[in-house]
Amino acid sequence: MTSLKEQLLKEITEPVSTGKNKITIVGVGQVGMACAFSILTSHVSNDVVLVDVMEDKLKGEMMDLQHGTAFLKNARINASTDYSATANSCMCVVTAGARQREGETRLDLVQRNTDIFKGIIPQLVKYSPNTILLIVSNPVDILTYVAWKLSGLPKNRVIGSGTNLDSARFRFLLSQKLQVAPTSCHGWIIGEHGDTSVPVWSGVNVAGVRLRDLNENVGTDKDEERWDDLHKQVVQSAYEVIRLKGYTSWAIGLSISNLASTILRNTNQVHAVSTLVTGLHDITEEVFLSVPCTLGEDGVTNIVRQKLTDEERQLLKKSATTMQAVQDGLKF
Amino acid sequence: MTSLKEQLLKEITEPVSTGKNKITIVGVGQVGMACAFSILTSHVSNDVVLVDVMEDKLKGEMMDLQHGTAFLKNARINASTDYSATANSCMCVVTAGARQREGETRLDLVQRNTDIFKGIIPQLVKYSPNTILLIVSNPVDILTYVAWKLSGLPKNRVIGSGTNLDSARFRFLLSQKLQVAPTSCHGWIIGEHGDTSVPVWSGVNVAGVRLRDLNENVGTDKDEERWDDLHKQVVQSAYEVIRLKGYTSWAIGLSISNLASTILRNTNQVHAVSTLVTGLHDITEEVFLSVPCTLGEDGVTNIVRQKLTDEERQLLKKSATTMQAVQDGLKF
Amino acid sequence: MTSLKEQLLKEITEPVSTGKNKITIVGVGQVGMACAFSILTSHVSNDVVLVDVMEDKLKGEMMDLQHGTAFLKNARINASTDYSATANSCMCVVTAGARQREGETRLDLVQRNTDIFKGIIPQLVKYSPNTILLIVSNPVDILTYVAWKLSGLPKNRVIGSGTNLDSARFRFLLSQKLQVAPTSCHGWIIGEHGDTSVPVWSGVNVAGVRLRDLNENVGTDKDEERWDDLHKQVVQSAYEVIRLKGYTSWAIGLSISNLASTILRNTNQVHAVSTLVTGLHDITEEVFLSVPCTLGEDGVTNIVRQKLTDEERQLLKKSATTMQAVQDGLKF
Amino acid sequence: MTSLKEQLLKEITEPVSTGKNKITIVGVGQVGMACAFSILTSHVSNDVVLVDVMEDKLKGEMMDLQHGTAFLKNARINASTDYSATANSCMCVVTAGARQREGETRLDLVQRNTDIFKGIIPQLVKYSPNTILLIVSNPVDILTYVAWKLSGLPKNRVIGSGTNLDSARFRFLLSQKLQVAPTSCHGWIIGEHGDTSVPVWSGVNVAGVRLRDLNENVGTDKDEERWDDLHKQVVQSAYEVIRLKGYTSWAIGLSISNLASTILRNTNQVHAVSTLVTGLHDITEEVFLSVPCTLGEDGVTNIVRQKLTDEERQLLKKSATTMQAVQDGLKF
Repeated sequence: MTSLKEQLLKEITEPVSTGKNKITIVGVGQVGMACAFSILTSHVSNDVVLVDVMEDKLKGEMMDLQHGTAFLKNARINASTDYSATANSCMCVVTAGARQREGETRLDLVQRNTDIFKGIIPQLVKYSPNTILLIVSNPVDILTYVAWKLSGLPKNRVIGSGTNLDSARFRFLLSQKLQVAPTSCHGWIIGEHGDTSVPVWSGVNVAGVRLRDLNENVGTDKDEERWDDLHKQVVQSAYEVIRLKGYTSWAIGLSISNLASTILRNTNQVHAVSTLVTGLHDITEEVFLSVPCTLGEDGVTNIVRQKLTDEERQLLKKSATTMQAVQDGLKF
Repeated sequence: MTSLKEQLLKEITEPVSTGKNKITIVGVGQVGMACAFSILTSHVSNDVVLVDVMEDKLKGEMMDLQHGTAFLKNARINASTDYSATANSCMCVVTAGARQREGETRLDLVQRNTDIFKGIIPQLVKYSPNTILLIVSNPVDILTYVAWKLSGLPKNRVIGSGTNLDSARFRFLLSQKLQVAPTSCHGWIIGEHGDTSVPVWSGVNVAGVRLRDLNENVGTDKDEERWDDLHKQVVQSAYEVIRLKGYTSWAIGLSISNLASTILRNTNQVHAVSTLVTGLHDITEEVFLSVPCTLGEDGVTNIVRQKLTDEERQLLKKSATTMQAVQDGLKF
Repeated sequence: MTSLKEQLLKEITEPVSTGKNKITIVGVGQVGMACAFSILTSHVSNDVVLVDVMEDKLKGEMMDLQHGTAFLKNARINASTDYSATANSCMCVVTAGARQREGETRLDLVQRNTDIFKGIIPQLVKYSPNTILLIVSNPVDILTYVAWKLSGLPKNRVIGSGTNLDSARFRFLLSQKLQVAPTSCHGWIIGEHGDTSVPVWSGVNVAGVRLRDLNENVGTDKDEERWDDLHKQVVQSAYEVIRLKGYTSWAIGLSISNLASTILRNTNQVHAVSTLVTGLHDITEEVFLSVPCTLGEDGVTNIVRQKLTDEERQLLKKSATTMQAVQDGLKF
Repeated sequence: MTSLKEQLLKEITEPVSTGKNKITIVGVGQVGMACAFSILTSHVSNDVVLVDVMEDKLKGEMMDLQHGTAFLKNARINASTDYSATANSCMCVVTAGARQREGETRLDLVQRNTDIFKGIIPQLVKYSPNTILLIVSNPVDILTYVAWKLSGLPKNRVIGSGTNLDSARFRFLLSQKLQVAPTSCHGWIIGEHGDTSVPVWSGVNVAGVRLRDLNENVGTDKDEERWDDLHKQVVQSAYEVIRLKGYTSWAIGLSISNLASTILRNTNQVHAVSTLVTGLHDITEEVFLSVPCTLGEDGVTNIVRQKLTDEERQLLKKSATTMQAVQDGLKF
C-alpha cells in the first residue's frame, strides 16, 4: 500500500545535509543552552547539535528547542551523547566542565576539567577535523590552552571566549554613565577573563574622542569622577549575577553567538578573544590571553597590536606567569 | 568643574522614551525569561521591563540581560518590583503563578493563582490602561478569563497563549514524518491548552493538499499509519519535557515572541490563541478557549470560523462546561 | 620600512574564503540588482558576486553596494565580467536576457536568449560544478529547460523562479480582500509563469478553512463575489507595474531572496517553482512548469502532488504542449 | 446574503492602525525607493507610505512593493499624492528635489529646491506635527536648513543624512586597505556632505589603536603610504558611481535605513548627521553641518565634541561661511 507520504510527495532527490554552518555545543547547562538559543534565535546557524553526558536533560533540551522550530525559520536541532552526530561541524562550542568545589585549589579544578576535556576535545576533532573550537568553560584561558594541546589544531582554530563578554559589560556600563548606546561606547578589556582582566583606558572613546583626551587621569585613582570604578564593576559583575540568580547565562550566550556570527560569516571583525599570545607584549610563556583579534572562517587571522602602558603590560605578564605555573602542573 | 560627560557631549535635547514598543514581562522564572530573551533576540521589542516579587532573582536576570545589550542592538532592559516601571507598556506578558501542589485540587490551584493575579492584573492596567494582556500562566484558559475579569479590558485585549504552542509542536511532528519544513506543514490545534486540546484534522494540509483528501481516515483510529499518534505526542510533549529537563521554556518563549511580533507589527496574521468564545461553535458559556484568530495592535480582530465535525464540537463544548464549573467556584 | 598595516596587525594566518554561502548573480539590470539587494539586506548570503558584460554599469553597482557594507553586517561584494570570480558559488541566479523586440516572434526571442545562455550557463557550471541554477530570465519556464540542457546538471539542481512570485501576488490580493495577513492567506498558482498560470482554487484556505468549503463556486464565473478576478489581477500585475514604472523589480527580488533562503538554509519549505514535470499530472512532454516543491541545499527534493480538477490539468497540459513546440524549434 | 468574508471571519473588533513606526518617504526616484526597500527589508518599519507627484510611477512602485509583502513579514505599504495619507508618521524621509541643470548656479538650484520644499515640508508637518524630518535631497546641508525653517520644528527634529554615508564609504576603504571589517574600522567624516567634507584623522582607529599613534603623518601629504588618498576616493565615490551607473542608490538607501533604525529604536547610537552647529567649533553662522550626534526617538539628543586640529576647524568654518552666503540669497 502506498503511504500517505508517498501519495503526497513525489521524490525528486534524497534530501542531503552537508552541514555548511553546523555548530556543535557541548554541555547543555544554563550556559550551553543560552549559547544554543542565542545562535538559533539570531539565525547565526540553522543547524545545531547538542552533546552532553546527561541523556535525559539532553533529550529534554533538544525537544524543547525542536518544538519551536516553526518559530526558528525551520532550524535543524539534534542532540546525542555520541560524538558521531557532530560530524562536519564548522564550529564546536565547549561549555562543559566542573565548577570549583569548596576547598579545592585552582590547580585541582583545572586538572579535573582537563580530564573532562580529554573525553571531549579529541572526539570533536575526530569527527570535525577542520572545525574551530570555541572554549567557554572556566578558567577559560587555561582551558583554551588545554583544548589546543589536546586537539592538535593550529593555534588560529582554537579560541577562548575570553574578554569578549567583559568588554561588552564595560561598554554597557560606559553607556549608562554617558547615555550613549553601548555599541557607540568603544572600550577594550584584555588579558585574563575575570578578576585580573585589564581595561585599556587609552583606547576608550566615543566617535574617536578618547576619554583620556578630555581627562588624562581617567581610569586611574587620581580621577575624581572615578571612571575606574566601571572596571571594578565589570569584575564584580559575574560574582554579582551569580549571587543574585545562581549563574550567568544570557550575556555569555549572546557573546558566543556574536563570535560565532563573525566566524561563520567570515567578516574579519575585531573581538577580544583568548588566543596564543607568546611573543606579544613581551610575553614569553606559551599561554592564551585575550587581545583584540580579527576573526574569520579560519579562526584568528590577526592580532591587533595595542599600545599598552608599562602598567598594563606588567599586568598581562603577571597573568601569563601565573597561568604558566598552573599549566606546568597539569597532567595530560 | 565640568564633568567628562559634559566635555564630551553637548546636549541638544533631553532623551525621551515614549515606549512605543515597550513590553512588560511579569514573572522571571524559566518561562518568563525565555519569553524576554526570545523577544529581545528576535528584535520584536527593544524595550523590555521585567517584574517579579523576588528582588534578587529579578535584579540578577536584569543585569545578565543588560550585559548583553551591545549584542542586542542596544535594547533597553529594566526591572522593578514596582509596577510604575511598567507604565505605557503596549503589551504585558504574564507568566507568574503557582504550580500545582501534591494533593491540591485543580480548583484550589486556580483559586491560588487568581489570588496572585489580583495583585498583578489591576496594577498592570493601572499603569498601562491601553495595554494588551497576554496570559501564559497555567491553566492558561481559565487564567485568561480571570485576567479579563480583573482587568476590565475589552475582550479583544486579553489573550491567552493557548494552543499557539500546541500547534507548533504538531507542525514539528508533521514535519518529521513528512520531511517537509514545519512552516509548510499546516495544522491547527484548538480548544483547551493541554490534555484536552482538539486537532482539527480536516484542515491539516501541505500546499493546500489535505491529508484527509489522500486518506479520509487520517486522524482517526481507523488509520493504519496512525497519524493520530502525533496529537497524542503533542499532548505528552509538555509532560515529557518536564520529566526530562524539569520545566519547559524555549518553545513557549518562542511562541510568545511570535505572538508579540504579530501584535506589535499589527499584521493580522492568524494564530491559535485563547479568546472569549461565547457564541462560537454552539458554546454558551463565558469561557476562553483557543481558536484561530487574526491579531493586530488592538489584540484579537477576528475569529476564523472553522468547519468542525460533531465530535470536535463536542470536545470543545465539554471543555467549556468543565471550565465554567471551575470558574463558578472562583472567588474574586 | 614597516607598513602601518604591519604595525597595527600581527598576522596569525592568511584570511581564507571558501564561499560556503556564495551567490552569483548574472545580470545587473533592475531585476538582478533587486535580487542582490534583497539577498544582502535579508542576510541570506554575505558573499555576493555580480556578473555582467556591461563593465561600467557592473562596476558602478558593485561600488554602490560596497559603500553600504558597514550597514550590511560586513558582507563581501564582488563583480567581474570574468566567470572565474564566481568559482564555488553554491547558487547562481540568472537574470540576464534580451527583451522582446517589436514584431519579434516568441520563438525568435527564446532563440536569442538561448544564444545568450550559451555564453553564461556553461561558464557558471565550469567554475561551480555543484551549484544550483536559479533562472529568472523570461520566458522563465522554457529558459529553465534551456539552462538544464546547457548545464548538464541533474534536474533537481536547475530551478525556475516560476510562480513563486505569482503566488505571492495572489496572497497579497487575498489579504486585501479578507483583511488577513498575506502569510496567513494560503493559495497556490502553478503552471506557466505569466498569462497562462493556473490558480488552484481547491487549495485556497485560511487556517485550513477552504474558501470552496464556504462557497463551492469560488474561483469560477458562477461566483457572484467574483473571487476569480483576483487571479486575473495577478496576471495583469506584471503588465500593470511595467506600464506604470517601466519594469518590475522589488517583488521579484524578494521572491528570489526567499527561494535562496530556503535553499541555503536547507529547510525543505514548499515553494511553487519551475521544475521538470514530465510524468506529473499526465504531462508527457519534457518541459518545466511550476508546481509546489520542497527545496533544500540540493535543490528540488520533492514535488507536492496536488489534486487538480480536469480543467486545471487541461490547462497545464496545454501549456506543456505549447512549450514543447517552442523547444522543438530551438537550436542548441 | 452573507459574504464569504463574513462566513470565514467573525469580527471581534475593527482593525486599527495608530502608526507607531510609520515612515513616510517623499520622492520615489532611485534614492527614495532604495530608502523604502532598505527600511522594509531590514524591518526597521513595517508601515511605509510613499509620496510623489508622479502618479503612475508612484502607483507602480507601491504595487511592486505590495506584491512582495508576503516576503516582508506582512509590511503595510501605501502611496498617495495626497499628504493626508502620511498622517502620524514618526519619521518623514525627504528625497525629492531637482538636479542641477547645465549652466545653473548652485544658488539657482537651491532656490528651485527650496520652492519644491515649500510644497512638501509644511504638508508633512501639518499631518505629522511631532514627526522627525530626515532630509536626503542635495545639497543636503542647506536643504536641511531650509526644511528646518519651513517646518517650524525644533532643531533636534530636523536632520540631514549628511556624512553618515561619507563615513561609511571611508570605513569601507579603510577595511579594504587593512583587511579588517568595515564595522571594526572607525573613522568619522564631518562637515559638508560632498567635496568639502573633512576626515577627522585623529580619531581613525581600530580597537582603540589610532593610526596616528603608529604614524603621526597619516592623513597628511607627508605620509608615504598616502592614506589621505582614501578621503579623496570618498569624495570621488559619488561622482564615480554616477558616471558608471547613472545615479547612486543602494548605499544611500542603507544609510537612511541605518539612521531610521537608531531613531525608531531610540538607542542613542552616534552617527555623523547634519545638524544645526551654531556655537560649535567657533562656527557663528546659522548653518547645518555634519558632526557626530547621538540620535533617539526625539532626533538629535547630543553632539559629540571632537578635538579638531586648527586646519579641520578652518575647513568647517569655511563651509559654514559659504553656506551662509547661499542661504542669505534664498527667498522663502
